[in-house]
Amino acid sequence: MSNGVVVLLSGGMDSSTLLATAVTFHDTVHALSVDYNQRHKRELESAKKVAYHYGVSHEILDITNINNLIGGSSLTSADISVPHGHYADKTMKQTVVPGRNLILLSLATGMAISRGINMVAYAAHAGDHAIYPDCRPDFVMAMMEVLQNCDYNPIGLWTPFLYLDKAQILQSGLRLKVPYELTWTCYEGREKACGKCGACVERLEAFKLNNMEDPLEYE
Amino acid sequence: MSNGVVVLLSGGMDSSTLLATAVTFHDTVHALSVDYNQRHKRELESAKKVAYHYGVSHEILDITNINNLIGGSSLTSADISVPHGHYADKTMKQTVVPGRNLILLSLATGMAISRGINMVAYAAHAGDHAIYPDCRPDFVMAMMEVLQNCDYNPIGLWTPFLYLDKAQILQSGLRLKVPYELTWTCYEGREKACGKCGACVERLEAFKLNNMEDPLEYE
Repeated sequence: MSNGVVVLLSGGMDSSTLLATAVTFHDTVHALSVDYNQRHKRELESAKKVAYHYGVSHEILDITNINNLIGGSSLTSADISVPHGHYADKTMKQTVVPGRNLILLSLATGMAISRGINMVAYAAHAGDHAIYPDCRPDFVMAMMEVLQNCDYNPIGLWTPFLYLDKAQILQSGLRLKVPYELTWTCYEGREKACGKCGACVERLEAFKLNNMEDPLEYE
Repeated sequence: MSNGVVVLLSGGMDSSTLLATAVTFHDTVHALSVDYNQRHKRELESAKKVAYHYGVSHEILDITNINNLIGGSSLTSADISVPHGHYADKTMKQTVVPGRNLILLSLATGMAISRGINMVAYAAHAGDHAIYPDCRPDFVMAMMEVLQNCDYNPIGLWTPFLYLDKAQILQSGLRLKVPYELTWTCYEGREKACGKCGACVERLEAFKLNNMEDPLEYE
């Protein structure tokens, strides 16, 4: 039996649903959020609320200083405007943070090892395969092999959404009563979600496909 | 032809020899050192001197704040004393930083991707296989697969010392005239090397096997 899991929690829909799924399987769940100079802190605030909702321990790790090293994405740089439209658009490549999931998983793994936890989870899903290499099965399989071999005891990598799209994840999350009003998806950091950026468009589409209203307020 | 390499440089013998080897193969070499709350900064000072000696760009990335997350090793915690004796001793396990090489390689990979460099190198070697899982061929092979799949273009992982021991690395480094007097191996952070800790013992042994005097001053 597992002795727990470290869940990478961004504060968005997918990772919040992952956390909800994790607490149904695991007695010990730690949520880890990473502050890597996202354009806005809204996402981290959401992560905090979602973790609190589920009563799990939550840590926010500040690695903003590595931004100089791996900068260049519109998700971390205020100089580059957020592209509108659909994830599959070429402009969405601008939202790729170099090596992001590799770095986040590494940190989650270090945390897991040091606390005697044998599993790490992140919300890689099929909707991201086209645009983000570090959400694809090839990357996940290789990472699984790494985590099996990086310490004395193997660490598992749990990606239950790997072959699901956003609408399917949402369907499952709605059944689990995930508090989606607490989550944050928008790439803009304004008071209400913009409803226009790639992330908002995908989110709204997923709710529509589930014949549900998004509880989040939009501009 | 390669467009360069990011070399993880600790400031010790092995990574300094790796840097010397890298500059014989690659026109563009970036050295990356990571400050993860090593017990002392001596090592980073050595890294700076070695990088300067080879005229390569050098960056020191401060991730000391992740120490709370992945603390517990005698190499980062002043509460745990440095074990003396040989690497193969069980006490050397205390020097393992959880997930260290995974984290360091992730950061080096993020840096490589963001700068259009297609290779990352670190000085994993056979002498460390017994004690450090993240220096073993299984880990390296899995990491190679990850780096092939973490971004749009594959990143190579170069570990030329993987099947060499410390004496063999030193032999090669002596031919390349590596300035070993600038390097730092000792786990203690005093003015002169202690000559007694596991790292010093291994270093002195390697020089002895090469019938050479270590140019470093010992207590």
